[in-house]
Amino acid sequence: MAIKVHGLPFSIATQRVLVTLAEKELDYEFVYIDLATGQQKTEDFVKLHPFGQVPVLEDGDLTLFESRAIAQYIAHTYADKGNPLITSNPKKMAILSVWTEVEAQRFDPQAYKLAYELVIKPILGRTTDEAIVTEHEGKLAEVLDVYEARLTQSKYLGGDSFTLADLHHLPVINYLMGSKIKALFDARPHVSAWCADILARPAWQKIIALMKH
Amino acid sequence: MAIKVHGLPFSIATQRVLVTLAEKELDYEFVYIDLATGQQKTEDFVKLHPFGQVPVLEDGDLTLFESRAIAQYIAHTYADKGNPLITSNPKKMAILSVWTEVEAQRFDPQAYKLAYELVIKPILGRTTDEAIVTEHEGKLAEVLDVYEARLTQSKYLGGDSFTLADLHHLPVINYLMGSKIKALFDARPHVSAWCADILARPAWQKIIALMKH
Repeated sequence: MAIKVHGLPFSIATQRVLVTLAEKELDYEFVYIDLATGQQKTEDFVKLHPFGQVPVLEDGDLTLFESRAIAQYIAHTYADKGNPLITSNPKKMAILSVWTEVEAQRFDPQAYKLAYELVIKPILGRTTDEAIVTEHEGKLAEVLDVYEARLTQSKYLGGDSFTLADLHHLPVINYLMGSKIKALFDARPHVSAWCADILARPAWQKIIALMKH
Repeated sequence: MAIKVHGLPFSIATQRVLVTLAEKELDYEFVYIDLATGQQKTEDFVKLHPFGQVPVLEDGDLTLFESRAIAQYIAHTYADKGNPLITSNPKKMAILSVWTEVEAQRFDPQAYKLAYELVIKPILGRTTDEAIVTEHEGKLAEVLDVYEARLTQSKYLGGDSFTLADLHHLPVINYLMGSKIKALFDARPHVSAWCADILARPAWQKIIALMKH
């Protein structure tokens, strides 16, 4: 098989790559990396990912890390497979890139921190830091106010159709839906409808099924 | 004039856009936004940038925010002007995207925080938080270790030639060179040579000259 993903099914960044492959209906080999034993820090693995983290994508002789760069590579390289996740219109692509940056620079720093405190820490048996939750909850609410305005004008963040700008959000939103932060999304009707729409996509449902195994 | 940049010459994100335009030898109109009086939060400006920040790029009827998305748009749209900042080879472009993500996700969160504490806060008459400096200094050193290894194999981060993956670093590195953090760069020979090389580029020198006016 040409495509190989090294990762962990519960890792948010790994899920971002897997849902991209699912949207493009691409087959791949999954290589489980045992973070608990520090496999990601071994000399062999650091050759694939210099920061010693997951995921890594191998496609033939090409080795890539950074989930958003991998998603972009898949979307461009396999443009004719599965669902389109980008556009060939340069102006529309520029708008799509703006919202991809918004996810990475504004949404994720708040949302990931909240998912870590409220979902991942309890799984690891650690105590949630409520001060961090309060701080980031307020900041995420401000980001979601901008999303609500955007989604009033446009069905999806990047434009009229589902693209990488939406897809990149899926793993963190899925985790937050199981926490009290769900209320922030529910309070904004367009954000709430957008979440329901993207979480129901068959490709994302495949990743949910994968996590249950 | 077709291209308009709304920003502030001292803003790191504004500089990222201006140096991209300088590399592409493009003319533009600069609209000064007075952050001190909160001009970026006015109703008119928020129509251009929903988060009420700088920079904003207008190119004909297209309005963009997020400095890295703007830089990418300029590099793609004006590919035939000035210096090439991207590549048309898909595999090389994928590698370039990996290192663009590394800047945004790993380098900038540490480096920007350090520039803020050590350079921007003193300008604003505020006190540097030494605990924050110590924490982020350690994390930046780890990132620069990976850069040193990468730059041993490749002249630039994104590949053999200067690209957006390098360019995005310029404004923060320039600020850090005037702080004690310079020692972290100086201690790593390939990182140090790379910094000297990219900071000496004519396009960056134009931005330095602009800041002196």
